[in-house]
Amino acid sequence: MNMNLADFITLHEISQLKYRYVRGLDTQDWALVKDCFTENASVWYSGGKFSRTGRDDIMEFLKGLVTPSFYSSHIVLHPEIDLTSATTAKGIWRLQDIVHFTEENPAFAHANIKGGEEMTGAAYYHDEYQKGADGWKISRMGYVRIFEAIERPKGRAGFEVETNTARGLVTA
Amino acid sequence: MNMNLADFITLHEISQLKYRYVRGLDTQDWALVKDCFTENASVWYSGGKFSRTGRDDIMEFLKGLVTPSFYSSHIVLHPEIDLTSATTAKGIWRLQDIVHFTEENPAFAHANIKGGEEMTGAAYYHDEYQKGADGWKISRMGYVRIFEAIERPKGRAGFEVETNTARGLVTA
Amino acid sequence: MNMNLADFITLHEISQLKYRYVRGLDTQDWALVKDCFTENASVWYSGGKFSRTGRDDIMEFLKGLVTPSFYSSHIVLHPEIDLTSATTAKGIWRLQDIVHFTEENPAFAHANIKGGEEMTGAAYYHDEYQKGADGWKISRMGYVRIFEAIERPKGRAGFEVETNTARGLVTA
Repeated sequence: MNMNLADFITLHEISQLKYRYVRGLDTQDWALVKDCFTENASVWYSGGKFSRTGRDDIMEFLKGLVTPSFYSSHIVLHPEIDLTSATTAKGIWRLQDIVHFTEENPAFAHANIKGGEEMTGAAYYHDEYQKGADGWKISRMGYVRIFEAIERPKGRAGFEVETNTARGLVTA
Repeated sequence: MNMNLADFITLHEISQLKYRYVRGLDTQDWALVKDCFTENASVWYSGGKFSRTGRDDIMEFLKGLVTPSFYSSHIVLHPEIDLTSATTAKGIWRLQDIVHFTEENPAFAHANIKGGEEMTGAAYYHDEYQKGADGWKISRMGYVRIFEAIERPKGRAGFEVETNTARGLVTA
Repeated sequence: MNMNLADFITLHEISQLKYRYVRGLDTQDWALVKDCFTENASVWYSGGKFSRTGRDDIMEFLKGLVTPSFYSSHIVLHPEIDLTSATTAKGIWRLQDIVHFTEENPAFAHANIKGGEEMTGAAYYHDEYQKGADGWKISRMGYVRIFEAIERPKGRAGFEVETNTARGLVTA
C-alpha cells in the first residue's frame, strides 16, 4: 500500500459520512439523512427487499418505514474501503441493528409487526460513494443479511423496554 | 476540511482515551478509569439519572454502581469529534451496552435489579475533552438513551449466562 | 506520542487484517481466514477452551466449529495497538459475538448445542502480529470472556430467526 495523508483524509470523510447517515436514521433527522445521498442515489436494503432509486424516493421510503414508533440503533463497523478514483470509492461495512417497535409497522411487511417486537440483525453493507462540490455522498447503498431475528412479546414475560423520544440527542 | 497529521494524532489520542475508559469500566480497573478524567470532570449518565461532579465523586459513584456482580460490555462507535482548540475538543459517540446483573444492585435504582437481569441499551455520548500536561482527559461526559431494555429471569426459562471474573483480561 | 504517517499506515493495515479475519469467519471464506495467519500462528479462543498451534491445525479446528449451521456476527472494536518493532505488534480489541445455531454443534462442546440456540458473548482479544513479505499477519490470537450467554429455544415462544446462506455477501 502507498497510502498518503490525502487517502487518510478521504477515509475519514467517508467514515464521518457513514456515521452521519446512521445518526440521521436513528435520531430520525431526515434533513441529515437526505444530505448524505447524491441526488441519483439508489438503495437496496435487506438484500433488495426494500429498493429505491433517487434521493426523494429513498427519503419517502425511509420516512414510511422509520416511524415515531421505530426505536433503532444501527451500528456500523469494519470498513474496508477502496478508493477507486479521486472522486469515487466503494466499501463494505458490517452492520448490526436493533429495532424496538412500539406499535404496528406495516412497512416492515415481511415480519408482521404489531407492536412490542424487537428485531436484531447482522449484515454487510455494500456501498458506493461519490465526491462532488459539497463533499462525499452515498451514491449506492445496500446490505445483505447474515441473520435477522424477531422476538415477539408473547414469549417475553419478563421483558420491559423504555424508549426515549430524544433518541440520543440532548434536548434543551 | 484541512486536516493534517497533528489532527489525526489528536483524534487517535482521544479515541484511545475513550477505549481505555470503557476498558476500565468493563474490567473494573478503577485506577485506569480515574486516570481518564480531569480533576474537575463532570458526568451525567443516562440523560442525567446519574450525575456527579469532580473526579473523586465520579469514582465513588461508579464503584457503587459497577460492583462485582455487574458484568458489562460497553461498546462505543461512530465518533464525530470536533477539535475546538489546541487543548479542547468535543465529540459524540454511539454507545451500546449490555449488563448482566448476577445479584441485586440498589444503585441501578430505576430498574429494580434483584439478580439475573440483563440490561441492553443504546445511546449517544456527548463528551468534552481537555489536553493538559499528561495528555487528553475527559472533562465532561454524558449520554442520552435511544432505548434501555431489561430482561428479567422470570421470562427466560432457557437462559443461561456464564460470567467470568477475569472480565476479558489475561490472568496469570 | 510521536506517531508519524508510517505508524498510521501500520495501524490501518492491522485493522484491515482484523476486519478481513472476522469477515472470513462470518462469511465462512476459509481461504480468506487462512491468509490472515502466519504459518506458525497459534490461537487460544475462549480463554483457552479452544487452543491450536499452526495455521493448518487452526483451519481444521475452525472448519469443524464454524459449520454451515453456525450463523455468526463477530464485531471487533476499541483497538489499543502497540507497535513493538518495525515488523511486530501486539494489541487488544473488544469482541462482541452473536451466534445462531440452526442445528446441533458438537464442537461447541461446553454448551450442549442441539439447534435453535443463540449465543451472545463479550470478550477482549489479545493479539500478536508479524509483518513479512506479504504484509501483516496474525501470529497469536486469543480472547478472554467477560460473559457468554446462551438462550435455548424452550424459553423463547415468540422467537424467530431468518438466517441467510449468503452471510452478508452479494451473490450473483
